[in-house]
Amino acid sequence: MIQFQPVLGSLKSYEAGKPIELVVREFGIDPDQIIKLGSNENPFGCAQPVVEAVQKAASKMPYYPDDSYLELKTALASKFDLTPDRIILGNGSDQVLDFACRCVLGPGDSILINRITFAMYRIYALQCGAKVHSTETVLHDLNAFLDLAKSIRPKIIFLCTPSNPIGDALFKSDVYDFLRQIPSNTLVVIDAAYMEFGKKKDSNTFISAKEVTDLFPNVFYTGTFSKAYGLGGMRIGYGIGSKELISNLYKMRPPFNVANLSALAATEALKNESHVESYLDNNLKEMKRYEKFAAEQSVEFIDSYANFITFFARKRGKSSTEISQSLLKQGIILRNLRSYDLNAIRITIGKPQQNDRVLTALNQEFS
Amino acid sequence: MIQFQPVLGSLKSYEAGKPIELVVREFGIDPDQIIKLGSNENPFGCAQPVVEAVQKAASKMPYYPDDSYLELKTALASKFDLTPDRIILGNGSDQVLDFACRCVLGPGDSILINRITFAMYRIYALQCGAKVHSTETVLHDLNAFLDLAKSIRPKIIFLCTPSNPIGDALFKSDVYDFLRQIPSNTLVVIDAAYMEFGKKKDSNTFISAKEVTDLFPNVFYTGTFSKAYGLGGMRIGYGIGSKELISNLYKMRPPFNVANLSALAATEALKNESHVESYLDNNLKEMKRYEKFAAEQSVEFIDSYANFITFFARKRGKSSTEISQSLLKQGIILRNLRSYDLNAIRITIGKPQQNDRVLTALNQEFS
Repeated sequence: MIQFQPVLGSLKSYEAGKPIELVVREFGIDPDQIIKLGSNENPFGCAQPVVEAVQKAASKMPYYPDDSYLELKTALASKFDLTPDRIILGNGSDQVLDFACRCVLGPGDSILINRITFAMYRIYALQCGAKVHSTETVLHDLNAFLDLAKSIRPKIIFLCTPSNPIGDALFKSDVYDFLRQIPSNTLVVIDAAYMEFGKKKDSNTFISAKEVTDLFPNVFYTGTFSKAYGLGGMRIGYGIGSKELISNLYKMRPPFNVANLSALAATEALKNESHVESYLDNNLKEMKRYEKFAAEQSVEFIDSYANFITFFARKRGKSSTEISQSLLKQGIILRNLRSYDLNAIRITIGKPQQNDRVLTALNQEFS
Repeated sequence: MIQFQPVLGSLKSYEAGKPIELVVREFGIDPDQIIKLGSNENPFGCAQPVVEAVQKAASKMPYYPDDSYLELKTALASKFDLTPDRIILGNGSDQVLDFACRCVLGPGDSILINRITFAMYRIYALQCGAKVHSTETVLHDLNAFLDLAKSIRPKIIFLCTPSNPIGDALFKSDVYDFLRQIPSNTLVVIDAAYMEFGKKKDSNTFISAKEVTDLFPNVFYTGTFSKAYGLGGMRIGYGIGSKELISNLYKMRPPFNVANLSALAATEALKNESHVESYLDNNLKEMKRYEKFAAEQSVEFIDSYANFITFFARKRGKSSTEISQSLLKQGIILRNLRSYDLNAIRITIGKPQQNDRVLTALNQEFS
């Protein structure tokens, strides 16, 4: 019998169940009629030139990626106005979060996260044998973070802004005030997977990767091509920090950690920012329809700076599980936040026609 | 200043240099004339239906993979005649090796590897704070492994057969004899990245993933789509073991660790085994030309069971570095094994016409 590391005792062996699309098909729904608004993917997909570039490059699949990822890192460096040695790529931004945990956390160390936040911070920390402390509020409360930071002395603090899975965002000025009060040996991760959406809605929530990491060398800023850029399936994200931080994170990076077609798709996506802009416009416009619906139906919701909106199920009405199941039977996939201990559903903002169907279905559930 | 984990002191921050293809282009070589035989990629590429399947599916890039990887795991389970819960997928087989290290190794633990072997075993072990012990011979010597295993008591032993980067292979009967003498709490990794080539050359070197992991629950067998299947750029590999082992490794697996187009390409590749077979035939046939050349020129080489051959530079002739550089200037990329402390070059067996050019160039160097 193999002796596994003690940390495995605190971890679950998570094997995903049957794909939800198969479940929906079993309800007899035509696959073309399924609406996937559960994973915050870009409903318009990536830009057409990205699809074409990948199709054209498909014959390159046999060849290992350029492990310096020269083209993509150069393009990102240009976008963020910094040098490539301030950037590290990951197999999704997940992976750069993992690098950060493994570089900083050991058994007995602590991290500090929001009560409701992206699930992987906790898991990566547990994999390192670290303890996980969280605030008590649903929305990010930086004063609560500050108080806990003083008593817990975490090695890493994770801020997710705009926040997954509920969509609240922090103001840049508040984050900067916070960072000024955090010891410089505490790593603060700013997970900006949804930053493009927040910036569009309210520029006060926009945090510049360059500025924040120039001012605060203990900040690690992470971003992704999975959301605004429409490349969730290709697994590509990035992290930005001081040259010293990035150089250390590189020690945990395996070679060729991003597939060549993924790097190529991301590079091409950066040449098609207008596609992203028009998606962001649609997102903001369509979000208002959900807000209007919620106001009309007196549904409690969280003001969202991302590409989704969170509706709380009514206390004496159907539960979020019942609502999700009911929509699933109609071919609409959204996210039940029950697993986050919230009686709420999260709906990715779709294309106008998708939202028509979702709102009609929700009307049945909430009215 | 962030306090990093002590293990980082033993690790190098490896940022890849300029892509070698750019170096070659700077010599004024037409990109179409560059021969890439340095990374053991399939020179025929993957099967055409794989390319077409990926082109057709390119519009799926925005959508996260099915995290159960149902289709690919079902296809692999069928190929290996075992249940899907005996399989774990990785972002390259690299990643499943990493999972194994992280599940088993802690500070102060040891691993045992061959003197000349795949570089990542050592790095993953160091990342876990483990000590790395190696045998003293160039080729795998199982008696030496056994002796060292008794004194070192490693938590993991890595056997790479056929071996990267030099191509020797172990006989199945010898491996089984070895495994019978290894304590059942020692994990033995059999890295079978090149197993398809070994099996083709001599069936005595073939180790069945199912049989070996059924007989020895402490064996973890790893394979890849990067070599025989021609998908090196797509980063997809797998590991096979007992249900209990795999279930534990899953605790270190991040969700969506393989890109959707990569999983799709691998699934399609498994439907095109005849493409792989004809590549294996070519490999064996063309390998003989290199062996003949070596015999004629009295060049010392290692009998290879993989898709490459290792030639030692002559003691009083040019060094492997000089030979590699000379070929590079002619647009031929091969691998200098100087970094493995060998005065040798490793040549991936190419297509017949590629081998014509390589052999002509080598003739200049060795004659």
